[in-house]
Amino acid sequence: MSRDGRPLAAAPPAGEFALIAAIVDALGPVARGEGVVLGPGDDAAVLAVPPQHELVVSTDTLVAGRHYPAAAAPANIGYRSMAAATSDLAAMGAAPAWALVSLTAPDLTAEWAVAFAMGIRAAAETMGLKVVGGNLARGPHSVTVAAHGHVPAGAALHRSGARPGDRIYVSGRIGGAGLALADAPALAACQLAELAAGSPLARYWQPQPRLALGVGLRGIATAAIDVSDGLAAEVDHLCRASRVAAALELGRVPLCRGAEAGIAVAAGDDYELVFTAPPAKAEAVAALAEAVSVPATAIGTVVAGQPWRGCWDVPFDAAPAGGYRHF
Amino acid sequence: MSRDGRPLAAAPPAGEFALIAAIVDALGPVARGEGVVLGPGDDAAVLAVPPQHELVVSTDTLVAGRHYPAAAAPANIGYRSMAAATSDLAAMGAAPAWALVSLTAPDLTAEWAVAFAMGIRAAAETMGLKVVGGNLARGPHSVTVAAHGHVPAGAALHRSGARPGDRIYVSGRIGGAGLALADAPALAACQLAELAAGSPLARYWQPQPRLALGVGLRGIATAAIDVSDGLAAEVDHLCRASRVAAALELGRVPLCRGAEAGIAVAAGDDYELVFTAPPAKAEAVAALAEAVSVPATAIGTVVAGQPWRGCWDVPFDAAPAGGYRHF
Repeated sequence: MSRDGRPLAAAPPAGEFALIAAIVDALGPVARGEGVVLGPGDDAAVLAVPPQHELVVSTDTLVAGRHYPAAAAPANIGYRSMAAATSDLAAMGAAPAWALVSLTAPDLTAEWAVAFAMGIRAAAETMGLKVVGGNLARGPHSVTVAAHGHVPAGAALHRSGARPGDRIYVSGRIGGAGLALADAPALAACQLAELAAGSPLARYWQPQPRLALGVGLRGIATAAIDVSDGLAAEVDHLCRASRVAAALELGRVPLCRGAEAGIAVAAGDDYELVFTAPPAKAEAVAALAEAVSVPATAIGTVVAGQPWRGCWDVPFDAAPAGGYRHF
Repeated sequence: MSRDGRPLAAAPPAGEFALIAAIVDALGPVARGEGVVLGPGDDAAVLAVPPQHELVVSTDTLVAGRHYPAAAAPANIGYRSMAAATSDLAAMGAAPAWALVSLTAPDLTAEWAVAFAMGIRAAAETMGLKVVGGNLARGPHSVTVAAHGHVPAGAALHRSGARPGDRIYVSGRIGGAGLALADAPALAACQLAELAAGSPLARYWQPQPRLALGVGLRGIATAAIDVSDGLAAEVDHLCRASRVAAALELGRVPLCRGAEAGIAVAAGDDYELVFTAPPAKAEAVAALAEAVSVPATAIGTVVAGQPWRGCWDVPFDAAPAGGYRHF
């Protein structure tokens, strides 16, 4: 039912305000709750950051036809948009809290909007976020999510803290999302509710940001970054920010079933974490990985010197020098 | 100069990371400062909300060809995007703090990106915001800004607090931005740096969110909303949220030079504030208006009863029932 009591199917609302009401209705419990002083419906949301905590914010835009197939199911687009933005919170060691969702779409129907909202809601429930506001505009299809979290003051993980001698770890397995791109018709046609857990399509549409791992890495990791543009590119970003180099073993990279290492390290969209920690923390890393049920695999070592980038022991042609470039 | 020392004009960077570096360079001092623990360049920004304060967040998307002319000057687009999002902070009585700027553009050149960033910077300097992050994506032109501010806990202004007997005020003058839309070639061709203060083109491209007024209205106003979709529509929104009606006098609406009242109350984009306050606060409102150098004009009275919307004493045909609709 829409906010004013009409059944959505019988009388799909066409106006902006009816669409917003239908979306907020579909969001249900994820539009209110912890820390939400004032949720959707006013000029802005009002939120309570816990005392002695810092706010952590990041935003990501996904554009139809570039970051996802234009004909994809709306719930899939909603879920993946939330995951892409929230993964950045994981990389900072932030606890997830709130999201703003901005949807731009041509000729939006209530059916599409509600299905999109259900994908947003599924992601928000899984990731522990409240959706506190957003924007609806007419235009070419795209979604921008601003994700907000918090950390105890001074506890955020940065890209820039890696030191020579640290081990380099990657969480989970990589290459799955890249495999999904090989089957374009399935990528566009599949439905969120029918995805097989761990399948390439699920890895692409339903990535699981490593939030619990990120929170647990506070005080353990010296640096962290999430894998959105490809493992090789992200290691390079981390090295540049930390002014170090990295010696990596391609053969140690944990791969999704069917993935080839040389391609997997260049493919993006896995939303795993890459992080560094001193050897003295190896047991703490292993215990944390066990506790949060996410593998953490050592794939290399931080070394001093230039160039500030990863050096892979096995040459591979598939990884472009700069990883995936948006421009 | 770009971050790596090459003059931008001689060697325009084409890659995403070079563009981001050029944008952050152009932002200069507005990318760091008060409350910014960690600014652009990591996975997320880290921010310090003052103790005993709540976070206020809002986001707005402007789409080329719909919310601004596609051929408009990039600095103009940047400025107006910032103003549209930040005006929502004013309506909440929030002090402005930080913004995330997401730019989607096809074939972005360094020249365009830096000019856009200069418009963002000019707005940020005027409005007192730090630009702490964002996103760059390739796709049809649009800009999404997420604006962040803060208020002492419990002090935010809401739409829902208007009570029968309250006076209804509007800040500044309205109708100027609407006039600018009448001259499409000038709207697209004008340059931010050359706009005459108070002119219709300046009102459209360089709106001045009423931030000082909004902060001053804490404890004075019972409700507030900003005028983005037209005065008549915003009064209706405020009435609906407060479950009251409003009796308004069209003849009292303060107009920009050349604006007609019936058209001005239906036109959007003025980014003034509409607010309500009990008659006992009339002197406080007047003193505040004087202190912040922004006129506050009483245009009507809140009344009990339905329908929850404004009733204008003079019929006017130009105002659509629901104001400007995005869908």
